[in-house]
Amino acid sequence: MAEERPLVLVTCTAPVNIAVIKYWGKRDNDLILPINSSLSVTLHQDQLKTTTTAAASRDFTEDRLWLNGEEADVGHPRVQACLREVRRLARKRRGGSAEDTAPLSLSYKIHIATENNFPTAAGLASSAAGYACLVSALARLYGVEGELSEVARRGSGSACRSMMGGFVQWQRGERLDGRDSLAHQVAPEMHWPELRVLILVVSGEKKQVGSTAGMQTSVDTSPLLKHRAEVVVPERLALMMRHIRERDFEGFGQLTMQDSNQFHATCLDTFPPIFYLNDLSRHIIALAHRFNTHHGHTKVAYTFDAGPNAVIFTLADTVAEFVEVVRHSFPPATNGDQFVRGLPVGVASLPEELLTAVVTEPVPGAVRYILHTKPGPGPQLVDDPSQHLLGADGLPRCRA
Amino acid sequence: MAEERPLVLVTCTAPVNIAVIKYWGKRDNDLILPINSSLSVTLHQDQLKTTTTAAASRDFTEDRLWLNGEEADVGHPRVQACLREVRRLARKRRGGSAEDTAPLSLSYKIHIATENNFPTAAGLASSAAGYACLVSALARLYGVEGELSEVARRGSGSACRSMMGGFVQWQRGERLDGRDSLAHQVAPEMHWPELRVLILVVSGEKKQVGSTAGMQTSVDTSPLLKHRAEVVVPERLALMMRHIRERDFEGFGQLTMQDSNQFHATCLDTFPPIFYLNDLSRHIIALAHRFNTHHGHTKVAYTFDAGPNAVIFTLADTVAEFVEVVRHSFPPATNGDQFVRGLPVGVASLPEELLTAVVTEPVPGAVRYILHTKPGPGPQLVDDPSQHLLGADGLPRCRA
Repeated sequence: MAEERPLVLVTCTAPVNIAVIKYWGKRDNDLILPINSSLSVTLHQDQLKTTTTAAASRDFTEDRLWLNGEEADVGHPRVQACLREVRRLARKRRGGSAEDTAPLSLSYKIHIATENNFPTAAGLASSAAGYACLVSALARLYGVEGELSEVARRGSGSACRSMMGGFVQWQRGERLDGRDSLAHQVAPEMHWPELRVLILVVSGEKKQVGSTAGMQTSVDTSPLLKHRAEVVVPERLALMMRHIRERDFEGFGQLTMQDSNQFHATCLDTFPPIFYLNDLSRHIIALAHRFNTHHGHTKVAYTFDAGPNAVIFTLADTVAEFVEVVRHSFPPATNGDQFVRGLPVGVASLPEELLTAVVTEPVPGAVRYILHTKPGPGPQLVDDPSQHLLGADGLPRCRA
Repeated sequence: MAEERPLVLVTCTAPVNIAVIKYWGKRDNDLILPINSSLSVTLHQDQLKTTTTAAASRDFTEDRLWLNGEEADVGHPRVQACLREVRRLARKRRGGSAEDTAPLSLSYKIHIATENNFPTAAGLASSAAGYACLVSALARLYGVEGELSEVARRGSGSACRSMMGGFVQWQRGERLDGRDSLAHQVAPEMHWPELRVLILVVSGEKKQVGSTAGMQTSVDTSPLLKHRAEVVVPERLALMMRHIRERDFEGFGQLTMQDSNQFHATCLDTFPPIFYLNDLSRHIIALAHRFNTHHGHTKVAYTFDAGPNAVIFTLADTVAEFVEVVRHSFPPATNGDQFVRGLPVGVASLPEELLTAVVTEPVPGAVRYILHTKPGPGPQLVDDPSQHLLGADGLPRCRA
């Protein structure tokens, strides 16, 4: 980083995560401190990732931000909070001197470009990956290392869990300043090699109530949410960690479903009530229970966030069969090309008695496609300069 | 009741009730003791009632029961529990002597016929009215007076609340034998003359999980239900009684909606989850909130039981307008004849700005009809012998 280099570019990728013990409700809106701890599985970036390039140059005249090629408001308070926090850490690292003598001046303006490899409209929690990626890229740019989940949390609560791979806990913390509200890895992504994730991307229906507004209303009005945060979650968190440690799918799956249901129950207990589950979600839930009942134990487990897509956890040996069950239950509207995406899925033929017991009242076209993925690692630095989203001029590259 | 009379006939009617603080969960399945107190509004029998004729004769060779003209199983444990309890009270009243010397012997076999003036399939809690009516008729037959809610409770928990008119509390009670788990009138039906009830009878969809099985699963699996019963309901009950005493529709309506939502939240927190609300229920809930928001205060309040129909509480001056809103939101499939039933509804024309703000995405045919009713009295003795459901031969009369 010699002075003659006019432009410094860093590109990172970051993953999506899916909570199995849900986060819903803040005890501090500004610092984004949760009312309860949560636990998630980081998904593999081969299927779902955000890529962010951050660039700094003394030639830039203002901070700028592009999301999926469109210029966006860099002044967004959460973007600014992340930027401010990374710069604060950089300043601290540089000895806290008021004099800024490092090659990459903290006073340089920055350009940021970010892109998802999945449609934002698909309702796949893009803000967690987005802020995790932003913070990772900025930290690399400024040479900041170490604990960054606290910074990512300032962008979006669940983003702190995308700062690590595998199984990640976001600890509620006790301090008012939030310094102990951090993410920790419970187990790395290779801990449970058979674990698989199927995302059922459903058709239509926009999110009705945004999660920031929704959780605030829940905190203000739901007596059940308060009880969940104070009493239920601490017990469940300990239990979930044990299930993960022991790779106990029966326990993991059941608790995942129960916690998803309880999160949506607290939404319903909110006033006015918030509904993220619809008749199709009910259909998928009932299908999963019929499938498990037919097999006599928990082979698939659903979880739903603040949107209509269903996420199914299962083990590798069940993927082909369950995908076939979904195909029969929600026959693809078109010829079925691209109905299954992501990791390869084997062929399964369904026994007649399984079809009869499990596939009732098919709903054609209700599921747009299934994305097959698995647990994956945390944010990655992209070494290949051809992958930068910003060109030598510091502006977004035209990408095919 | 001289000995020469071969047949003694008694006919009673009994009302349906709608809980505003919901009952869900038993602490004793046999005695039907609830985990929390509940509170309901008794609906007027001009619109919804069960009629039951009980007859005793020394000529009857066996106990028999007819429901809506079809013979049914008189050996049903809950029917038998009611019969046994009424006879026990009669025996006690007659001095507990082993010798049965009263004109109507307790050893005579009985015939019972019962009918609803509304379709059972409409999902309007018929068991509460049914058991309240059975117990009322049997008590009259045997000359038993006084506290009968305990007996009705043995037929169906919520039946005890149909033993009184107006606003009725079913107290949880503390005793293991259930002797203090009784219904009490909080206020008579004329206490709040402006209060009105609109039942939106919706199309299709049978109840998926019966309430007896459902509430048992909830007690066994929902941590939120336990908290609701122990902590939330006692507070809400006191508050609801105050709202009723003060005829405070704002408070009454809001708490009614909140408690309905919380009941359904505990169903969702049950494992496997139970869903009684569907997309149409969500539609009606959202409509009610938009209507209230438009008016700037609570003018209508929804409540849903373990079935798909919506019950709306409102005041007399709002009925015509809200019915018109429902007609616009769920345009009747046919020409709209009989779309509104029960008490007369005035004509209202909706201001354009109300229509724009409140009626979004109409769903034709989703509501079959609206039944307009109001709070009403408890069980009634029918004096007119032409109204008996059993003829002089002790068998069901053919009715037009």
